[in-house]
This record gives sequence, structure tokens and C-alpha cells, in this order.
Amino acid sequence: MKTLKPVRIIQFESVPCAPFQNAERMAAIVRKARADGVGLVVFPADSIHQTPSNINMQEDFREDCDAAASVVAEASEGISVLFQSFYDNGDSLEASCIFAEDGRITAFGRHEDDFSTLTSAYSGKFAVVSSEDIALGFNDDDDDADAPDFEKGTSFIVVCDNDNYSRDDPHLMAKNAANLALLARLPVFYANDVGVQNHGKLVEIYRGDSAVFDARGRRVALATPFEECVLTLAPGDCGRKCSTRKIPPREEGVAELVAVLRYGLRKFMAQCGIHRVVIGVSGGIDSAVSTALYGSILPSDDILLVSMPGPFTSATTRGLAHALAANLGARFAEIPIGESVDLTRRQFAELVAEGPHGAMAGAWSLSPFALENVQARDRGSRILTAAAAAFGGVVSCNANKDECTVGYGTMYGDITGWLCCLGDLWKGDVYAVGRYLNDKVFRREVIPDGIFKVKPSAELSEKQAVEKGLGDPLVYPYHDRLFRGWVEDGLSATDCLRAYADGVLEDILDYDGDVRDLFPTPAAFIADLERWWNLYRGLSVAKRLQAPPSLAVGKLPLAAITETQQRPYYGREYLELKEELLNLNRPPNE
Amino acid sequence: MKTLKPVRIIQFESVPCAPFQNAERMAAIVRKARADGVGLVVFPADSIHQTPSNINMQEDFREDCDAAASVVAEASEGISVLFQSFYDNGDSLEASCIFAEDGRITAFGRHEDDFSTLTSAYSGKFAVVSSEDIALGFNDDDDDADAPDFEKGTSFIVVCDNDNYSRDDPHLMAKNAANLALLARLPVFYANDVGVQNHGKLVEIYRGDSAVFDARGRRVALATPFEECVLTLAPGDCGRKCSTRKIPPREEGVAELVAVLRYGLRKFMAQCGIHRVVIGVSGGIDSAVSTALYGSILPSDDILLVSMPGPFTSATTRGLAHALAANLGARFAEIPIGESVDLTRRQFAELVAEGPHGAMAGAWSLSPFALENVQARDRGSRILTAAAAAFGGVVSCNANKDECTVGYGTMYGDITGWLCCLGDLWKGDVYAVGRYLNDKVFRREVIPDGIFKVKPSAELSEKQAVEKGLGDPLVYPYHDRLFRGWVEDGLSATDCLRAYADGVLEDILDYDGDVRDLFPTPAAFIADLERWWNLYRGLSVAKRLQAPPSLAVGKLPLAAITETQQRPYYGREYLELKEELLNLNRPPNE
Repeated sequence: MKTLKPVRIIQFESVPCAPFQNAERMAAIVRKARADGVGLVVFPADSIHQTPSNINMQEDFREDCDAAASVVAEASEGISVLFQSFYDNGDSLEASCIFAEDGRITAFGRHEDDFSTLTSAYSGKFAVVSSEDIALGFNDDDDDADAPDFEKGTSFIVVCDNDNYSRDDPHLMAKNAANLALLARLPVFYANDVGVQNHGKLVEIYRGDSAVFDARGRRVALATPFEECVLTLAPGDCGRKCSTRKIPPREEGVAELVAVLRYGLRKFMAQCGIHRVVIGVSGGIDSAVSTALYGSILPSDDILLVSMPGPFTSATTRGLAHALAANLGARFAEIPIGESVDLTRRQFAELVAEGPHGAMAGAWSLSPFALENVQARDRGSRILTAAAAAFGGVVSCNANKDECTVGYGTMYGDITGWLCCLGDLWKGDVYAVGRYLNDKVFRREVIPDGIFKVKPSAELSEKQAVEKGLGDPLVYPYHDRLFRGWVEDGLSATDCLRAYADGVLEDILDYDGDVRDLFPTPAAFIADLERWWNLYRGLSVAKRLQAPPSLAVGKLPLAAITETQQRPYYGREYLELKEELLNLNRPPNE
Repeated sequence: MKTLKPVRIIQFESVPCAPFQNAERMAAIVRKARADGVGLVVFPADSIHQTPSNINMQEDFREDCDAAASVVAEASEGISVLFQSFYDNGDSLEASCIFAEDGRITAFGRHEDDFSTLTSAYSGKFAVVSSEDIALGFNDDDDDADAPDFEKGTSFIVVCDNDNYSRDDPHLMAKNAANLALLARLPVFYANDVGVQNHGKLVEIYRGDSAVFDARGRRVALATPFEECVLTLAPGDCGRKCSTRKIPPREEGVAELVAVLRYGLRKFMAQCGIHRVVIGVSGGIDSAVSTALYGSILPSDDILLVSMPGPFTSATTRGLAHALAANLGARFAEIPIGESVDLTRRQFAELVAEGPHGAMAGAWSLSPFALENVQARDRGSRILTAAAAAFGGVVSCNANKDECTVGYGTMYGDITGWLCCLGDLWKGDVYAVGRYLNDKVFRREVIPDGIFKVKPSAELSEKQAVEKGLGDPLVYPYHDRLFRGWVEDGLSATDCLRAYADGVLEDILDYDGDVRDLFPTPAAFIADLERWWNLYRGLSVAKRLQAPPSLAVGKLPLAAITETQQRPYYGREYLELKEELLNLNRPPNE
């Protein structure tokens, strides 16, 4: 029996809407592999085309993908290749898993499951496990997810995945692949994409994580994250001691998160052909961290920071905004909004509207609340968008996930921009990312220390005067945890009120404090809960529908939910419990 | 054998997020039916809850729906009821089809297909056909869609649908139900919803169309559209001559479309708790038809029309905007944008930005194109949103489907508002709706005749001066047809270029003219095609992601497509054909 040749998995970055360009690069990779003595080349799921994209509905695109698949197949002289593309099977032109060998396509299926096994003339018999099966996991505690039973003679498993990063469990697919290896007692070759993909409001980031696992589930090779690269290993060698194979150390926690954000932002800018950004800097943490994030991937010449002081802007934040720009060395301009806001106020105060009941003078004065939004829109829609046009760039939206969750922001005001780079980060994460950027990326104070210390505030009214210690009505980290519970863990107002009544809300939210310190009475707790729940399930939905896309990094990005504008729902249990607690009129468990 | 009692189908309007309120009303309907001697009551799919809504993920909501289902079941003393709700089957709490009789639930299934047949003690044995099967049709030309084979003794069929209006084939479900009756040789009782449902950017409209068909597929009873109502008929009576049953005449074409738009707009306003609207009126057709549409459902007191003349506004359109307001009797204000636009121009011209290479004066002047968008944003984000706050209303977005398709509009400018009421209408439809509103709804000239005649124009530059006959770069009705082909019929740039080369583009687009009259050379045709295709698959996607929701009435509303921001794709065939045609340098078929 001849020796079986090594398998090479390709961590690949597919260029969207460029099937021939991708196929030519894939063909070159295949020819190189053949020259290197490789027997089987495995590409991740998104190589010739990206999987979930509306371009796939376009017939000429599918036809070109089919033709591009032939380009890859033709390169397979003396070698086997597994990849995916649209393929004309004679009946229809469908997304398919394709196996090519010796210059032609020898097997295909609509889904990986359509193959029981495949046999490479060069690397032997192997099984293909679908990315869906990998996502479901192969947990032996779980009766539903048994180890698959493979045909006799199967000597290894391949997985062609397209799994994007999620900070909730960033290595889940790799863990599941390892578990599959252990259960099947076969080596697993796990190939995944790098790059970014956008699905409307979601911009997903693919870090790679391609790896090889031996038959005992130990990882014996790991691809460098964020890079196109290859891993080559003979299936028979997987079990051997492999001290020579260096496994790069993983970054974890905030280090990994920052790496993912920087990579995703850089890639998505390149994909959209964007080189320059305009950021409205308030002197607060969100705009500062957005600035530092862009500053960590762009020349400072390509960043224009605009400070837009208004009637309620403090000297403190105005100075901090300027200091941020000076620290980074970015371009900086100050464009005040006072004159324009006054003009708007005056135009409405003087307005005489005709009507069915005659002319009405003085009826249209703007309320203080309306004037808060006028300020925000003057910044977002009048100044920043014009500045972007003058600068040849785009506007950054600096909202964080708390603000997106409850719609704490003004439509066409601070909720504007091409991308919300922090939109999937809770406020606490924003601070952590900012500190990490200062400490580990820049290794100097780019974000002024004062910005970490100043009270978060929109500074749109007297009530939000930071120099008097006033600011946003959100109490971090409590609201961070509460909103995370709602969005990512599916907790309802009922769940929260029940947990509060039982004295376990802190545990359920993983909140490191005592809710009774924030809200002295059940009435205060309930008023706060309903205030934000009403916004989360009410008006904020309308705002999210018109909000910019976000970089998706969390467990459940808001844009992944199809939302409807309707009344917030309070269950029957909630209403009963609320009445009980209000009658009690003191905190539970006292 | 006892006589079987009549069946009553209920055309029902479900209130979102109000399971108990819906259930109480349903229970009353059931008790009334019992008193009327009915044997079986059938509700449409969306009664206790609406089907496709994120609220259904909320556990306390599902629990309350289950409890609400018991309220309906308890009302079924001496009668049978078929309806849908979340139901706790002991294993899990799932959306279910529920059959109740004599005060308790006697059968349930996750899907209508889970029942082979059901037997009502009062109305006999019947089959339940799912809305999905109905949507697939029962066309006897089609081998895939055979008539279902029902158990012996089945004497009628019921369908619990939730089918929204689509002008492409507005009576498709009813036709399919009729066809089912014919094929199965059984009467069909078809129950459907009325009301509106919103799914993020799509606001769907349910007209009803509930009906009874006899065993030969003839419609023997039809519910009044847009209203809650009941149809009662004994299955055995369906075949009899039914001269006494009056079938209301259907409205068709634009009459039906206008009825649907007015109903949908009224219902969605009520659902969102909105009573007043602010409309920026330009003197053009889109804002005029939006005005007339709102004017046809709201007191004129609740409509504020705002004319915002700018440097390029003509006396013609300014006068037409005023005339529109006078004709309708709405409130009217004129708020010029000149001063604010000048201020913005000046602030940028005088701007000195610091930067890594020192201060830069005079580098930030706004280009004429940037100033076009400044004007649009001044109207949309500075004036109209503030006017809405002062008036206690919302802003209407007046974009039509052509503009939405290619993003011919300014983000945060004219692409703002709570709802785009014309967003699913092509430009030709907008004119037709406007004429119908004048002629048949108001029966007088609400939209001034001059508005139908003026050249469509954004009036943002000298190049768009309507009084010189200049205006938008779109040539209606050609671009209407072209864009409809792209969006609704899935035509690609390749398909269009091929059809042009073959001289059949007019046929394919159903365009009543000669493309060669518009574009003297292939180069001119291709330049126009690529200009709009690039926008449709390019920048306009970014604009649609942040656009307001639309009333959905067409074959494929833009918001029904999940779009990704990427390069427009031109297939290989396109590029080859383009080269051929450009070499030819004269129109094909000459």
C-alpha cells in the first residue's frame, strides 16, 4: 500500500463578488500544494463566493461561480481538492460542495451530508462533516448529539466551515471539532475563513481558527489568526508527538476583542473602499474609544476629529476632546453649533403657520427637550456629514450597545454614520477597550485619563452638566448588566421583577453590587425598569431600524433580531407581582 | 343522522401584544356563534398573537398566550372552535393549531398538517390545509402540487391563513383555495386576517379576502374587505344555488391599491399611536401624493405642510406647494433654508483645522455637490424633525420605489421620516394614485394640476431648474420599468444588456417605447445602465439600511431583501457583450 500524502487546509479570505479572482488564487494554491507533495487540499466554505449574500440570487453571478469552479477543478492534476461553489449539476445551478481530482469534478453534493465518504486517490478515505453539525456540537453529555458513525476505512474527517467570531464563546467551533475527533477517534482537519462579511446591518468578522486535531482531540496544528495561511499534515502523522509544530499562543479576553475589532474595521473599510473617517469628539468615552480604534489602524492624517461645542458643553469635555486630538496627532477642527441652533430656535419662535382656522403665530416654539435633539442633529446631520464630504471620508457612529438597546441617542443626530464600530460593546467593554488601546496598543496616553474619569453625559441640557457631577440617567455597570440580560440572555421585564422580588437579581445579571443601593424602594426599582423596558421594546426599535450597521462581536448583536414596532409587553405575572411589591412598599428580603 | 350545523369563519383583526384582549373578543365571538346555532368557528392564523414577531421570543408572552387559549377553549361549550396560539403541550410551549370543543382543548398540533382530519361533534368531519400549502397552489398543470387526498367522510376543508396584500396578484390565495375546492371536490372555508403587521422595515397590510368556495370551486360567500366580519354557511348548503348571498363587488387596479394604502396607513398610524404628520412639500408629485394620501384619512388640522424654499427653488414649485396646502385646507408654513445653508457654507469656508502638518485654512470649502446634500439635510434633519416635535407628530418620508432602488435621495435629508408611504410604488403608480385621489376620493383638485405637469426635480442645483425644463436624470417611464425588472423580476445588468443587444429589451421590461429613442448609441445605453446598476447594487444599499420602513404593497418590496454592501456584479457575459456592442458603435438591429 502506497504512503498517503499529507492533507493541506487553507485558511482563505474570499473576495466578495469576484468568483474568477478567487478561483485563480485557489488554483495557484492547489498547484503549489501539488508541488509541495500534498495529496488533498481543503478550502473553507466561503471561497469562490460568500455564502449568505443577496448577490447569490443573481443568475449571471451563479453561472460565473460555476465557471470559476472549473478553473479550480482544472488545477487538480495529480491532487484532490474539496471546495464549495455554485455548480450546474445538469438539473439546476445550486450552491454545492465539490470534490475534484486529476483535473475534473468527480463528486458533488448540495450539502456536505450528501457524501457519506470521499476517497482521495492521494490521501485516502475521509468523511466530510457539515458546519451545521459542528455548530450543534458533539457533546457526549447530550444524547441528541452522538458521534457520527463513519464507514470502515475512513481515516480522517474534514470540516469546511464559515464561522464568524463571537466573544461569547470565541473558540466554540474549534472545541466542537476537537470533541468530534475524540468521539470519532479520527483526526479532524478544520478549515475556516478569514475576512469580513456584511449582511445588512451586521458586519461579521472571521478570525480563522483553522486547526488540525489528532484522534484524541488534541490540537496539533493551529493557523495564525487573521491571516491567510495553510496547515499541512499527513493524517497518519497527527497522532505522533509533534514538538516541532509550534502552536501560536492565543490572545484572550480584551486583547482578543481589540484584535478582532481592529481587524474587522480595517477589512470592512477596505471592502467598502473607505480610507478616511470623520469623528465627532465630545470629550466622552465612546467617541474617544472610536477615535483610538480608528487611530490604531489609520494614518493620523486620515482622521478628522470635530469638536462641536454647544450651549451646554463644559470647558472640561471641550478640553478633553482637544487633548485627545493632540495626543493622537489627528486633524482637529472646532465647529460650534450655537449660531445654527439659535437660528433654528428663532425660525420656529417667529413662525406663523396658516391653517384651516387662520394664521397662528407663536405656536411653534421648540421645547427644551426638542432643542436637545436640535443640538444633536445639528452636530450629526449638518456638520459631520458635510465635514465628511469636505474631507473625502465617512462619519463614524460612536454609539455603544447600551445606547442602541434603549435608543439613548437622537435619530439623524448622534445615530448617524457609515458604521457603528462599538455598537456591539457594552459600556464596560468600551472602557476596557479604551484602556487596552492606551496601555498595550499605543503604549501611551492617547485617550486622556480625564476621559475615563468624566461622568458620561450627552451635555444637551443643564441637567447633564458634567462639572456638577451630572450626566446620563444610566447607572453603569448596573444598566450594562440589565440590558445584556435582556438582549443576550432573553430576560423579560417579568424575569427581572421576579428575580428582584426573590432577591436574586444581582446573581442573574452577574451584577457586582446591591440593587437596593440604587433603588431604595420597589417603586423606584420598577419605575427604572419600566422606563428602560418601554424604550427597549418601544421607541428604540424605530431608531434601530434607521441606525447604521455595527461590527458584530457579541453573543447576540441587536441587528441579528428582526424587530417589529409594537407595544412593550408586560406579562400577567409581571402585573400581579408589581402590585404586590408596590403594596409592600419596601425592598424585598428586608 | 342529525343535521350538521353551519360553519362560521371569522375575518379577525388581532391586536399585537394583547393576547388576553384578543382572547376575550374571540370568546365573545364563539358564544355569539353558539347562540346563532353555528357548529364550528374558524379563526385565521393570527388571532391571539401575530405570527412573525420578535415578541414571540418572550417567554412570559408565550405563557400568557397559552393562558389566553384556555379562555377561548372555555367559551366552546356546545360548539367547536379552531384557532392558533402558543400552547403548552406538556413538553414545550409552541405555536400550535388548536381545536377546542365543549369547553376544552381536544386536539392540537404544531402545524395544520399534524391533523389528518378533525371531527366536530356539531359540523362533522373536516380537513385543515395549511397556509403554506395554499401559498404553493394546487395547480393541476403542476405535477408537484396534486390535490390532497383526504380521509373518507371528510365533508369540507378549512384554511386558517395570514396572507398580506400584494398588488402583483392580490387574490392569489383565494384563487388557490378555489382551485383546492375544485380538485378535492369539497367546499373550502378560507379565513384570513385584516389589519397591519410590521416586520421591521416592512409594514404589511391584510385586506381579508375570507371566502367560502363550493365543491366546484365557485365562490359562494366573500367577506367585506378591510373589516372584521363573519361568513356562516352549512357545508351541505355550499353547492346550492345561492342567489340570496350577496357577494360584494371587488375593487381592482388603482382603486384597490388606493384603498389598501389608505387602510394600511390609517391602521399603522393607530397601531403606533400617531395622530399628526408633518410633510415637506416641494411642489413635486411625491410629496403631493403623500399629502393627499394623509389628507384622505386625517383631519386637515392634523397635517402640517412645510415648504422649505432654498437657493434653487423655483417660483413655480413654491407656488404649487402653497396651492396644494390651500386646496387641502391643511396647516401650512414656509421655512426657508437659505440662511442656514449660508451659515454652513461659511463655517466650512472659514474653517481652520489643526493637524499633524500644522493648521490648514481654506481647505474645507464645500463642493457644489456637497452643498446639494447640505440643502436636503437642512430640510430633513434641521427643519422637518423639529417641526414634528413642535407639532406633536411625525415626519412623512415621500420617496418612491425608483428613488429607493437607486438611492436617489440624501441620507438624513429627504430619506428621513417615520414611514415611507409610497416606498413600494413606482413613479408611474405615484401619478396614478394621485389622479385617483383627486378624481375619485376627493372629487376635486386637491393636488394642483400643475404638479402633475411639472418636471420631476430635486431643485438642488442650477442643473435641476424646472422652469428651464430641467430636472431629475431619470427618464420615466423607462427607468420605472427598468428598475422594476431589476427588483421585482430579478433581472441583472447582463439580462438587460443581452435583451438590448437582441432588440427585445422593450418586451422584457414591458416598456411602451423604443429604447433607441432614449439612447442613440450603445455607449449611451450602457453608460445609463451602469450608472444606475452601480447605484442599485452599490451605494443605495447603505442608504436603504438607514431608510424608514415602507408600506409593502408590491411584488417584492425592497425591504424584503437582506442586502449586503458590496461591489455591483457584472457577469463575464456582460463584459464580453459590452465590448462587442461598444465596438459596433451603433444601436443593435439597425
